[in-house]
Amino acid sequence: MSASVSDLPSGPLDIYRSKASFNWKDMLRFIDGDDIVIFKQKVFQTLENDPVFARLPGEDVPLEKMRELTFLRVKQLFCYDLLPDDEFYSNPWKYIILNDCLGMYDWALSAKFFLNKGMFRNTVERTGSNRHTKYLEPIDNMEFFGCFALTELSHGSNTRAMRTTATYDPNTQEFVINSPDFEAAKFWVGNLGKTATHAVVYAQLYTPDQVCHGLHSFVVPVRDPKTLLALPGVMVGDMGKKLGQNGLDNGFALFHNVRIPRSTGDVTPEGHYVTPFKNPNKRFGASLGALSGGRVSITRMALVNLKLALTIAIRFSATRRQFGPKDTEEIPVLEYQLQQWRLIPYLAAAYALEHFSKSFYMNFVEFQMGLLQRDKSDRQSELGREIHALSCASKPLGSWTAQTGIQECREACGGHGYLAINRLGELRNDNDPNCTYEGDNNVLLQQTSSYLLNWFHHKQHSDGRIESPLHTVDFLNDFHQILETRFTASTEEECMDSVVSVAAYKWLVCFLLDESFKRLQQQRSMGKDEFESRNNCQVYYCRSLSMAYIELTCLERFEELTRAEDTPAGLRPVLQKLCGLYGLWSLHNHMGTLYQGGYFTGRQPAEMVQKAILSLCTQLKDDSVALVDVLAPPDMILNSPIGYADGQLYKNLWSTVLQGPKVLQRPSWWKEFCSYKPQVGSLQARL
Amino acid sequence: MSASVSDLPSGPLDIYRSKASFNWKDMLRFIDGDDIVIFKQKVFQTLENDPVFARLPGEDVPLEKMRELTFLRVKQLFCYDLLPDDEFYSNPWKYIILNDCLGMYDWALSAKFFLNKGMFRNTVERTGSNRHTKYLEPIDNMEFFGCFALTELSHGSNTRAMRTTATYDPNTQEFVINSPDFEAAKFWVGNLGKTATHAVVYAQLYTPDQVCHGLHSFVVPVRDPKTLLALPGVMVGDMGKKLGQNGLDNGFALFHNVRIPRSTGDVTPEGHYVTPFKNPNKRFGASLGALSGGRVSITRMALVNLKLALTIAIRFSATRRQFGPKDTEEIPVLEYQLQQWRLIPYLAAAYALEHFSKSFYMNFVEFQMGLLQRDKSDRQSELGREIHALSCASKPLGSWTAQTGIQECREACGGHGYLAINRLGELRNDNDPNCTYEGDNNVLLQQTSSYLLNWFHHKQHSDGRIESPLHTVDFLNDFHQILETRFTASTEEECMDSVVSVAAYKWLVCFLLDESFKRLQQQRSMGKDEFESRNNCQVYYCRSLSMAYIELTCLERFEELTRAEDTPAGLRPVLQKLCGLYGLWSLHNHMGTLYQGGYFTGRQPAEMVQKAILSLCTQLKDDSVALVDVLAPPDMILNSPIGYADGQLYKNLWSTVLQGPKVLQRPSWWKEFCSYKPQVGSLQARL
Repeated sequence: MSASVSDLPSGPLDIYRSKASFNWKDMLRFIDGDDIVIFKQKVFQTLENDPVFARLPGEDVPLEKMRELTFLRVKQLFCYDLLPDDEFYSNPWKYIILNDCLGMYDWALSAKFFLNKGMFRNTVERTGSNRHTKYLEPIDNMEFFGCFALTELSHGSNTRAMRTTATYDPNTQEFVINSPDFEAAKFWVGNLGKTATHAVVYAQLYTPDQVCHGLHSFVVPVRDPKTLLALPGVMVGDMGKKLGQNGLDNGFALFHNVRIPRSTGDVTPEGHYVTPFKNPNKRFGASLGALSGGRVSITRMALVNLKLALTIAIRFSATRRQFGPKDTEEIPVLEYQLQQWRLIPYLAAAYALEHFSKSFYMNFVEFQMGLLQRDKSDRQSELGREIHALSCASKPLGSWTAQTGIQECREACGGHGYLAINRLGELRNDNDPNCTYEGDNNVLLQQTSSYLLNWFHHKQHSDGRIESPLHTVDFLNDFHQILETRFTASTEEECMDSVVSVAAYKWLVCFLLDESFKRLQQQRSMGKDEFESRNNCQVYYCRSLSMAYIELTCLERFEELTRAEDTPAGLRPVLQKLCGLYGLWSLHNHMGTLYQGGYFTGRQPAEMVQKAILSLCTQLKDDSVALVDVLAPPDMILNSPIGYADGQLYKNLWSTVLQGPKVLQRPSWWKEFCSYKPQVGSLQARL
Repeated sequence: MSASVSDLPSGPLDIYRSKASFNWKDMLRFIDGDDIVIFKQKVFQTLENDPVFARLPGEDVPLEKMRELTFLRVKQLFCYDLLPDDEFYSNPWKYIILNDCLGMYDWALSAKFFLNKGMFRNTVERTGSNRHTKYLEPIDNMEFFGCFALTELSHGSNTRAMRTTATYDPNTQEFVINSPDFEAAKFWVGNLGKTATHAVVYAQLYTPDQVCHGLHSFVVPVRDPKTLLALPGVMVGDMGKKLGQNGLDNGFALFHNVRIPRSTGDVTPEGHYVTPFKNPNKRFGASLGALSGGRVSITRMALVNLKLALTIAIRFSATRRQFGPKDTEEIPVLEYQLQQWRLIPYLAAAYALEHFSKSFYMNFVEFQMGLLQRDKSDRQSELGREIHALSCASKPLGSWTAQTGIQECREACGGHGYLAINRLGELRNDNDPNCTYEGDNNVLLQQTSSYLLNWFHHKQHSDGRIESPLHTVDFLNDFHQILETRFTASTEEECMDSVVSVAAYKWLVCFLLDESFKRLQQQRSMGKDEFESRNNCQVYYCRSLSMAYIELTCLERFEELTRAEDTPAGLRPVLQKLCGLYGLWSLHNHMGTLYQGGYFTGRQPAEMVQKAILSLCTQLKDDSVALVDVLAPPDMILNSPIGYADGQLYKNLWSTVLQGPKVLQRPSWWKEFCSYKPQVGSLQARL
């Protein structure tokens, strides 16, 4: 089945489109594949054609209405059943693409849908006793609606410190779920605010002998599915407005000795604890990998936000004219080197992350298959560790790149970027939690550096070879040789080839690994405990190390793509430029370190890198509109008049503004102005 | 009159407060002075005690209601008349402090108030014909309410390209104001959306001979003050929701041959244009300086946002505990080096900018006095140029430091930072326009570098001495010697002294100036026109130059303060640490350039700077709570439960969440869940 892709409407963007060095439809088919192109069209058209999903441009939708609309849309998605199981199994990537498409429309909708259908349902299914299996049908029919309750008011990152308890009562064969006080209230739980009938609650499991067996999950009914009223003993409520994603009802819950039937296999009817795992080390690797799913998705979700923002900002920049060499004619702001430098490197990052997030998801799927097949091999366990290390850095890389990129796009669109209907604020607000949930970015980065330091330690102490399932650390075998390398490129043109930045990154990772290791040793030798030693190695060392490692991985995978045999010849040149730019631009943030460690010396390297970055920006300038055409959803999904495909910036903006509610009406409170005038200074006596 | 300052409530923050190295009340009195401390107390208490200003925590206030509330509050401010003229003239700094205080409460209120009372009224007054003077009384009584209409839909930065026209008709002695088409609609005008009765409209002045005399301002009635209905020929409306500051009604207007009486002295009754200026060069300097007022204020406004965000994030970090050396006890997240490094440098920046913004405003006041006294001296004109150059860089420095700082604070507060009631989102949204209005940051920075390049050119070609009224460029006389200097500090301790970063910054400015100049020459020699040559020198050259220059100026002024005789001895140590940290942390962003130009060589310099930054963060950690106590407004003004002065993080957060509307109620749309279940897949046939 070959996907047919419609032409984009003709207009002011034609000037740039006609100058593109490649065919944007070929690029789209190459990146997505026909199957996905068709699937995306199906999802987008479903949303476009159904009034339930109609946009309400300029309307000031109250919070409660936003939540109602989101719920009704979720219900409609049940009716559409856009990704039946068989279709998912034949191409698991569609799961992510469905999330992409729904998120492009509205992240709150996507979150509400997948928190219930994915995170809640999957946990129930995985926990897997008979009692739980019987939940699946009502979940699938929306008799039940669920949520995932882990974090508490006073604990987020330190999950082990959660204080909700589940105490087994052998007399009634029930667990008693209890919140010791309000600081242990489950907090921030998506869907719990108004909708959830059931919650997967993480609690410390206590057996009757008063021994605590750590955090376990329990399915706890919280609201009556017939009335949506809270069940006895459950205090459940809505957290109110957030910075973004307000269609999603995040909530809290306090449990006052709520009794639920014994369901987990971890406790016998009599109250004895039995663990199903024999080798705790392998169990650990497996569970680490399994927990990576959220972060793998978030890496992608952040990228989607970046793509939308870039589409808006680049189409705007290609049609917004301001100043020019002559007073009589103004040029598009995209023609300014400064504007190119602000936006085009993010476009390169988007293409790099596009490929990385896809290939990384496929690694994760491979790992999941291993779990399903109960693969107990060393490789499976090692794969779990590597995916954990990668996802703990890819989420920060993705979410921060999107955060700074969206901000740059907002500013690059000037005042019009500040108008809510143009959506850049919503994108920034909706992207923000990606930096925080499923682990705070800075905290997660410590996991990645620990993984690298462990390999380093392994190498130094057992002189073993370093080889990981995904080969992201294999180059560390050449650690000493790499540390000896120096920057050797002698022309700006040479720098544009991504091999130059890949080589520099390898040196950078080795250097930072070495430095981090030394710093850690030094802290220990000063008599500091492990906790403090680790903490004092983050800034300038471990944190930078983790970032350099993930940037290298992302860059290398992109480079492979640009050289792969089945990459069409017509697309290679532009992909290679994007790859070269991504490498140099990322590397530029580490300039100080490159000089500090002697990889760069003298003026030449920095100057060449900077020149190469600017040249690549200029070379990619005429391709940039076509490059965002590849990433852009239909206008109705993009929902930003300054970024529509026809490039009619002002016409679209003006007509959207005019169609807002009461735009030309005087305010309801006009008499407050006209009839009741202030007595200047009349209240001064009060002061 | 000595100001009495109340103690802060006792609570979990006492631990840090008791460890502070200085008395926070002494610092407050030193920074503000008694007069200002008392004035701030008056303003804050006014807002706290009047129910018109009551906070509505957690309430979902509709846009129209937000605007009504803001208008009613502005009216109440007229009644209070918080800063009568005589008080203003005796201490002009109070004007800014009033803006600080109102902005801390709500920037939309402050903007609505000052756009009318300041920007609109001042322009009317300055334009100054008799006709205009008669407007002043109705403005002061709120019979009229005004706005300042410069930007158009299709033009922002390029003000000269505005297309609204004002054509003089000698037959009726009127100006005819006209918008040629919708792209020339005045756009983004604060107060114009719903409230303004009059607008200062900037239009191209045409005399009957069809000669265009450039942009002039005209006072145009837009709404009937008795009804708030639009006047004939005026299409005026509301732009709708923005990313922030939604209490302010930004609007647009199209004029269809609207006639207003001749008012400006620039045209004779017969229709001849007369310019009041003889020396266009001096006129230019004067007008540049006058336009700086907005940017001087914005520098300060951005700082205020940063102060609020830091108060929230540092109090949160001092009371939020997560992980610890032992499983049994968790430590405040402020104890982590990483958290210190994320927040404390911004605190140092806030103190540096506090002093800079104040001293710079005083420079501006001096300049304004010169204008009022019709000072036509060279010094006055030079002062105008220097203030222009400084304000074009201080606005970017202030607004970007606040932007990234607020974002860091948001992330540093984790999930709780994402809850709207904690206000970090509002601060980010309200700060955002500071990067854009009164000139896009990146565009403005070109003005600063041009100023520096002009001095450089002057020095090279006439071998004249460089001396500016505020002496910010005088060091360029030693350009050659400075370029020869190298980094000589040999210990971490030495680096902590701000002299080290000041010296490095002087070298940096000279280096970047030299490089920018060469780059410009090179572009010209390649045959590029002036427009393109300038554009191609921004990235890595002129833009960095402007930033380095303003950072140096800000740092030097702060350093002077730490060494000034009347700076109390008890405060000097902490101020010197803040100054040292601000210098090094800012300098760290230029590390690559310092190495590139040979000011740094080898590993030592970067390592020492980094160690010194981390040491200073640790040393300032125990002072940081007291340092934000100095900057913090009362809790009602701060309006963020996680940042209140009593440090009862969870109690304040929990009780605020619970008091939101309908928190524990089921949703109004519960039947949509309970009664109408989706038929899974029923709509698949549609696809």
